[in-house]
Amino acid sequence: MPVRTIEWVGETDGCVRLIDQTLLPVETRFIECKDPGTLWEAIKSLRVRGAPAIGIAAAMGVVLGAQKSQAETGAGLVSDVERCADYLATARPTAANLFWALDRMRRAARESAEKHPEEIRHRLLAEANTILEEDRDICRRIGRNGAELIHDGDTVLTHCNAGSLATADYGTALGVIYAAHEQGKRVSVFADETRPLLQGARLTTWELMQRGIDVTLICDNTAGLVMKEDKVNLILVGADRIAANGDTANKVGTYSLAVLAGEHDVPFYVAAPLSTFDLDVDCGHNIPIEQRSGEEITCGFGRRTAPKGVKTYSPAFDVTPGYHITAIITEHGIIARPTTKGISEHFAEANK
Amino acid sequence: MPVRTIEWVGETDGCVRLIDQTLLPVETRFIECKDPGTLWEAIKSLRVRGAPAIGIAAAMGVVLGAQKSQAETGAGLVSDVERCADYLATARPTAANLFWALDRMRRAARESAEKHPEEIRHRLLAEANTILEEDRDICRRIGRNGAELIHDGDTVLTHCNAGSLATADYGTALGVIYAAHEQGKRVSVFADETRPLLQGARLTTWELMQRGIDVTLICDNTAGLVMKEDKVNLILVGADRIAANGDTANKVGTYSLAVLAGEHDVPFYVAAPLSTFDLDVDCGHNIPIEQRSGEEITCGFGRRTAPKGVKTYSPAFDVTPGYHITAIITEHGIIARPTTKGISEHFAEANK
Repeated sequence: MPVRTIEWVGETDGCVRLIDQTLLPVETRFIECKDPGTLWEAIKSLRVRGAPAIGIAAAMGVVLGAQKSQAETGAGLVSDVERCADYLATARPTAANLFWALDRMRRAARESAEKHPEEIRHRLLAEANTILEEDRDICRRIGRNGAELIHDGDTVLTHCNAGSLATADYGTALGVIYAAHEQGKRVSVFADETRPLLQGARLTTWELMQRGIDVTLICDNTAGLVMKEDKVNLILVGADRIAANGDTANKVGTYSLAVLAGEHDVPFYVAAPLSTFDLDVDCGHNIPIEQRSGEEITCGFGRRTAPKGVKTYSPAFDVTPGYHITAIITEHGIIARPTTKGISEHFAEANK
Repeated sequence: MPVRTIEWVGETDGCVRLIDQTLLPVETRFIECKDPGTLWEAIKSLRVRGAPAIGIAAAMGVVLGAQKSQAETGAGLVSDVERCADYLATARPTAANLFWALDRMRRAARESAEKHPEEIRHRLLAEANTILEEDRDICRRIGRNGAELIHDGDTVLTHCNAGSLATADYGTALGVIYAAHEQGKRVSVFADETRPLLQGARLTTWELMQRGIDVTLICDNTAGLVMKEDKVNLILVGADRIAANGDTANKVGTYSLAVLAGEHDVPFYVAAPLSTFDLDVDCGHNIPIEQRSGEEITCGFGRRTAPKGVKTYSPAFDVTPGYHITAIITEHGIIARPTTKGISEHFAEANK
C-alpha cells in the first residue's frame, strides 16, 4: 500500500486524516479535517475522490458532526447527525457510495437514539471505521474475482483512478490488477491521463509505479489508437453509480472507451462494490451527473490554456449503457452482460 | 481574418514572419525567421503548424536558404537549395504538404538553374508567395464545397485546429464553417481541446470567437458523450496526409472520433486540399507517424502533472481508415465514401 488514503485519527474527539490528492504526484501532503465543513470542501474539491473513498470520508464527516454537536440528549444528537448527513450529501451528486454511507450512518445514529450522546458518538465512529474496514476486504474480494479475467501477459487499459487512492487502500479496477500481479501474472497497463483533472496521469501512474507495475501514460484521445494497434487485451474501470439495469456512471470518457472497446472486440469490465449500485434508479438516464467548473478545463495546469470567456461543457461523468459492458465485477462475483434481471439475481445471492 | 498566420516580409533579402502559435491565446506575438534553422525550429516546435501552413512555411524557408547561399552560379545555388529543402523536410515527418511544397520549390529552382543566382532567388520567392496565394483560394473553395453539407442550425464537432492558423488565412475544416456562416447559416461548434498541445482549446476557440461563431470547448474524452446526447450534427476535421485509398492521418484522437461518429450515425467529414493527398502511399499503414516527446504530456503547461520517469506513448497523429469517412472535401469537390478508385477519378477530373 503506497499511502493511507483516509483514516480516522484518535478517539471520538479525533479527526479525519486524508492525503490531499490534488497535490499528487508532486507533493505528498496530508490534511486533517476537524469539522464537517472542511471535509465537505475536501470532497467537493477532490482532495479525496473515488466513490468508495468518498463514502468513507463522508461517514467520518458524520462523526465530526456528532463531535461538534452541543446536543445534551441522544435524540438531539441524532437530529444534528441527520442534518450533518444531509449537508455532506450535497458535496457531490453522482457517487452512490456517498449516499449509501450516509444512510448507514443515519441508521446507526437512529438505532442508538435512546443512548447517551457520547455512546452514540462511539457507535458512529465504530460504524465509520467498519465501513472503512469492510472496504479493504471488499476491494480484495473484487480483486480476486476480477483477476480470473486477466491472463498472464495481458495489457489493461484504465481510465481515471479506481485504485488505492479511490478506496480505503487497494482499489476496485486497480485492485483487480494488483490481485493478478500478486498471483504472479505479468500485467501491463495503459493509463488514460483523464482530463480535466488528470487523475490517471497524477494518481494511477503514481500508484502503479509504486507497486512496480508496468504503466504507460497516454492522452485520453489515444485510447482508440492503442486498441486499433492491438495493444490492449481488456479495459477495466471503476464506477461512481450503477443503475438497476447495469447502466454505469463513471468518469467522463468511459462511455467512449466502451464504444471503442466494442469496435475492437476488447472486453470492457467495470469493477465496483455492491454499495456503488443504486437499485432505486432504473436506468442511467436517471443518474444525476455533476457539472464541474469550466475553469478546470481552461486553466487547470497553472496557466490559462483557452481564451477568457470561452464557453465550456464539463460534465464530470458519463453513463455507459449496460449493453456495452462485458461484465461487472463485484465482491460477490461477476455479473456477465449486466441486465436488470442479472443484477437483481446477483443481489439476491449476495444477500443470502 | 483574425491575424496573418504567415507571410514573407520584404524582397529576396526579407524574412518570414509568423505568429507564434505556442503562445496563443494568452499572447499574440510574431516572430521573424531570418534563416532556415530558425524556421526549422518553428515548424518542429509547432510555432507554425497545420499541414497547409507548414507547407507555406517550408517553401519560404527555402527562400531563406537561397538568400544565405554563397553560390556564385545558378547550379551552385540550386544545389544549396536542394540541401536546404532536404533539411527542412526533416522538421516533421507526417504532413504531406511539407514534402509537396518542398518539391515545388526544388522544381522551381531546377527549372531556373541556368539563370543568375539573384534571378533564381526572385523565382523562388515568387513560387513561395504563389503557394501562399493559392492556399487562400483553395481554402475558400474547400469552404464553399463543404458548406453544402452544413444546414442552418447545425452543430459541428471539430478536433485540433484546421482553421486560419493552420493555413494561409481561412482554414480547411474551419473554412467550411466560415463559408456556411458567411452564407447566413447559423452554425455552432464543439471544439475538442486536443491534448497534449491543446490546439483546440488555444487556437480553434480563439479563431471562432474572433469571428463571432458560437463555440463550446470540451475535453477530448467528452466527444462521445456529446454525440450520444444528440448534440452534434456532423464532424469536420482537417488532415495531415491522405493515402491513395482515403486513409487519413490527422491529429491523434481523430480515429476515435470517426468510430464514435459511426456508432452515433453522425457524418464524419475530412476537409483538405489536394496537396495533402500522397498518392504514392497506398494506404494509411505506410504513413509515417511522428512520435512526440513525453514531456508534452507530463509537463506541458508550466507544471508537472505525472510522476517523473513515467513511460508515455505520444504519437502526434493517428490514421482513420477511409471506410470510416463519410466524405473528403477538397477544392475540387466532394469525394463521398473515399476509395482508391474514387480518389483517382477525383484527381483525374481536377487535373483536366
